[in-house]
Amino acid sequence: MKLNFDEKGLIPAVIQDRQSGKVLTLCYMNKEALDRTLREGKVCVFRRSKGRVMLKGETSGNIQAVKEVFVDCTDNSLLFKVEQKVAACHKGYFTCYFRKVDRDGKESVIEKKVFEPKDVYKK
Amino acid sequence: MKLNFDEKGLIPAVIQDRQSGKVLTLCYMNKEALDRTLREGKVCVFRRSKGRVMLKGETSGNIQAVKEVFVDCTDNSLLFKVEQKVAACHKGYFTCYFRKVDRDGKESVIEKKVFEPKDVYKK
Repeated sequence: MKLNFDEKGLIPAVIQDRQSGKVLTLCYMNKEALDRTLREGKVCVFRRSKGRVMLKGETSGNIQAVKEVFVDCTDNSLLFKVEQKVAACHKGYFTCYFRKVDRDGKESVIEKKVFEPKDVYKK
Repeated sequence: MKLNFDEKGLIPAVIQDRQSGKVLTLCYMNKEALDRTLREGKVCVFRRSKGRVMLKGETSGNIQAVKEVFVDCTDNSLLFKVEQKVAACHKGYFTCYFRKVDRDGKESVIEKKVFEPKDVYKK
């Protein structure tokens, strides 16, 4: 597998829940995060805001077990089908795409909260 | 809807086939491409290799009719659920993720070709 990492050394990865087909999130991996993801079978990301590789769900325990991996036609992105534990979004929703946008650009929350972030991400 | 376009003025958009739930592709939109997508109801992308906004399917006719739009928890990416005409991938497959990667990094094509690119993209 040859991949085109961008000028920051990252490649975007779409994470999809295998069972429901829901798109959970879009994350970024550097070579180290990708190698660890493939080796350990759990999604690891390069958290840009922290500048380091993290296991997705490191704090919350809501890990993503990798079931299938796909590469796009241009070697520019990846797709992981996973088994999501509890919920993917740090705001407590199953997916990060819990807000729907209507034609006027107005957003509405269309998922129910699965957990309360303040109970999970304790200071 | 406030969005975080990156330093190149782009935001990534995951495109998902509404009917099958398949992830079709990951594309990039600038403000103009996004506005046109929302206004016309067909996915328009900023084609980085050409440096301009294009209707997805401009050459092939394989457009993506927008059915639903979602924004992620960080305002960093979008998800479009679409009705895909024929196939999304310029290589002739329904999705751009037609190659599966096994544990050893070996790729195998897991979709059947829907069209022959050389017949569609004529010089």
